[in-house]
Amino acid sequence: MYPIKLIAIGKPKLEAIKQLEMHYRSLLKGFCRLEIIEIAESKGDLARQLREEADRLRPLLASVRCPVLLDAGAPSRTSEDWAAWLGTRMDRGESLAFVLGSSHGFDPAFKSEIRERLSLSPMTFPHDLARILFLEQLYRGFSILKGKTYHK
Amino acid sequence: MYPIKLIAIGKPKLEAIKQLEMHYRSLLKGFCRLEIIEIAESKGDLARQLREEADRLRPLLASVRCPVLLDAGAPSRTSEDWAAWLGTRMDRGESLAFVLGSSHGFDPAFKSEIRERLSLSPMTFPHDLARILFLEQLYRGFSILKGKTYHK
Repeated sequence: MYPIKLIAIGKPKLEAIKQLEMHYRSLLKGFCRLEIIEIAESKGDLARQLREEADRLRPLLASVRCPVLLDAGAPSRTSEDWAAWLGTRMDRGESLAFVLGSSHGFDPAFKSEIRERLSLSPMTFPHDLARILFLEQLYRGFSILKGKTYHK
Repeated sequence: MYPIKLIAIGKPKLEAIKQLEMHYRSLLKGFCRLEIIEIAESKGDLARQLREEADRLRPLLASVRCPVLLDAGAPSRTSEDWAAWLGTRMDRGESLAFVLGSSHGFDPAFKSEIRERLSLSPMTFPHDLARILFLEQLYRGFSILKGKTYHK
């Protein structure tokens, strides 16, 4: 099973979000070995908080061939384009880790170190809901690649 | 309180989605009088199903000044652009109804009758999750308009 990491800053608070996360993780079991790594959000002065978060993210990404920032400001893709991107990376055997920031985004220096971006929507969503959107698109991406019928 | 309608084809099945719907409806109570109208999905031949759904939607929209189709294929907007659009329509006092189709989309003739479109993302999401995305953006739109701090 292909290993895929989701590194998320902050934890979901709403019980319903936790349930949806379990729902999609369970669906994904047939497609990949998903590891979700949660990093606590830093406190205090914002610029310093983002630098601290970046310092804890870097070692987690050091051995990852293709780290991807989840970023609403990145160019939009359809689910089909995203599935094609995912398929290409998997064919190359590249290790994949997706990074979901807190509500405050990322440290600018850290952001400039990561080239690959994925936008789930140009609209802003809460980070816990964004986590569900990512898991759903990961499942949809695999379903598209496998030509599986998946109810929209 | 400004009246806003969401007309949705199909009902959410997952319990967690129903809970998130209640969560956002409760947050929205401070901003608008939201009415959610659910229409059962038609069965059988697809083209006929979509025509039947359209026939049931038209009378519900007959008295609405500004009906809006939720459509992944529409041009994307940021949350700020969406809030500005919402504010303009409310300033004009226009009655607003948003229509969320089933997984099969809309009858082409019906689609051509509605000019306003809102895309929540160019990616495809399940219709029950799309309902949550819409409610969240409605809440976010009002929060932006009122200059309220709202955690992303």
